[in-house]
Amino acid sequence: MSDSVPFTGDPADTHEAIMHGTFFALKEYGYAELSIQRISNELNLSKSTLYHHFSGKEDLLLSFFDFLLDYLEQFYESGSINEPQKAISDIIDALLNENITPKKRSAKGEVLAMYVELRSQAIRDAKYRERIAKADQRFIRQIAAIINTGIDQGVFQAVEPEETAEFLLAVLHGILIQGTTRESVPYQQLHQNLTEYLQAELFVE
Amino acid sequence: MSDSVPFTGDPADTHEAIMHGTFFALKEYGYAELSIQRISNELNLSKSTLYHHFSGKEDLLLSFFDFLLDYLEQFYESGSINEPQKAISDIIDALLNENITPKKRSAKGEVLAMYVELRSQAIRDAKYRERIAKADQRFIRQIAAIINTGIDQGVFQAVEPEETAEFLLAVLHGILIQGTTRESVPYQQLHQNLTEYLQAELFVE
Repeated sequence: MSDSVPFTGDPADTHEAIMHGTFFALKEYGYAELSIQRISNELNLSKSTLYHHFSGKEDLLLSFFDFLLDYLEQFYESGSINEPQKAISDIIDALLNENITPKKRSAKGEVLAMYVELRSQAIRDAKYRERIAKADQRFIRQIAAIINTGIDQGVFQAVEPEETAEFLLAVLHGILIQGTTRESVPYQQLHQNLTEYLQAELFVE
Repeated sequence: MSDSVPFTGDPADTHEAIMHGTFFALKEYGYAELSIQRISNELNLSKSTLYHHFSGKEDLLLSFFDFLLDYLEQFYESGSINEPQKAISDIIDALLNENITPKKRSAKGEVLAMYVELRSQAIRDAKYRERIAKADQRFIRQIAAIINTGIDQGVFQAVEPEETAEFLLAVLHGILIQGTTRESVPYQQLHQNLTEYLQAELFVE
């Protein structure tokens, strides 16, 4: 994935400018305290300009969630499928090498933290769930394709690819939620535990 | 754990009554849309009574989070430490046998969903992080004690107990976040994958 700090480049259009401003306003205030006023302050745009593009806070944040999910795809599109073991390890490293702990969060770690925060909206909101179902499916298909290649090459064990991909996604989500919600988490150790799991259950030794 | 529906019994005092009312108001509105007015409507209490006990919504919800974390301890205190394999399996079953998917959520599944929702507040709020650090530590100590017993009895492999407990917590969190935020999740399969992980990496065959 790109090494640039997310959402700081020149926006292509007003929609993208609003998405960038929403990122920084959300970082400052969090979901519950965010308002159209605060986003318009962040952007030096009038509230009426924002209301021209979005019907309100919920509509705007749902668009922002789409924008965030598209960005996150970079984290797992980098690997070359022809080197399946490296491809899986690269995806895990891309996700887990960012610092996501509250006080030392990197810029990309902030994107991951925001993803966890907005994903939890789906507990009560079907519109978020629709998007999450598609995003999880994209991740699972990408990982399952790599696993299939690894099985064909004889370097992976004969697991069920989609099932293993779903479980890997759960482990990653669990590490992300622990890492974003405590000051101190043994993050390297969890990363290592996940690697050991893959060595035992997926990779052919 | 108790089979009763949570937060429906006679409250011991006004504080507990407010906690019960908060549960049902949160279930209906979610964190961002909750207000002191809505909780007071739920309880048929005046707003001034609520303000006598709490300085505002944030203070009340932080107390409710404490209340929820205490309730959740029941999920992992049930196991008998002298049968370590059964103790670990019982804790996992207690957490993963509840239906937590959005449209078919059980009453206890609702408690778990609310836990995930409120935990995500910790991404930006240090007061939630303090509570989560303590709650995670209690869970990890309890599991690590069971693992230590299993190692002493020769029925568990010689893993590092706290490290394995932290990783198990991450897997459980990941399954919970996937299960609460999609309409359809292969929940039994994820539960089975976790059992297979324990059979391979923890239990002596």
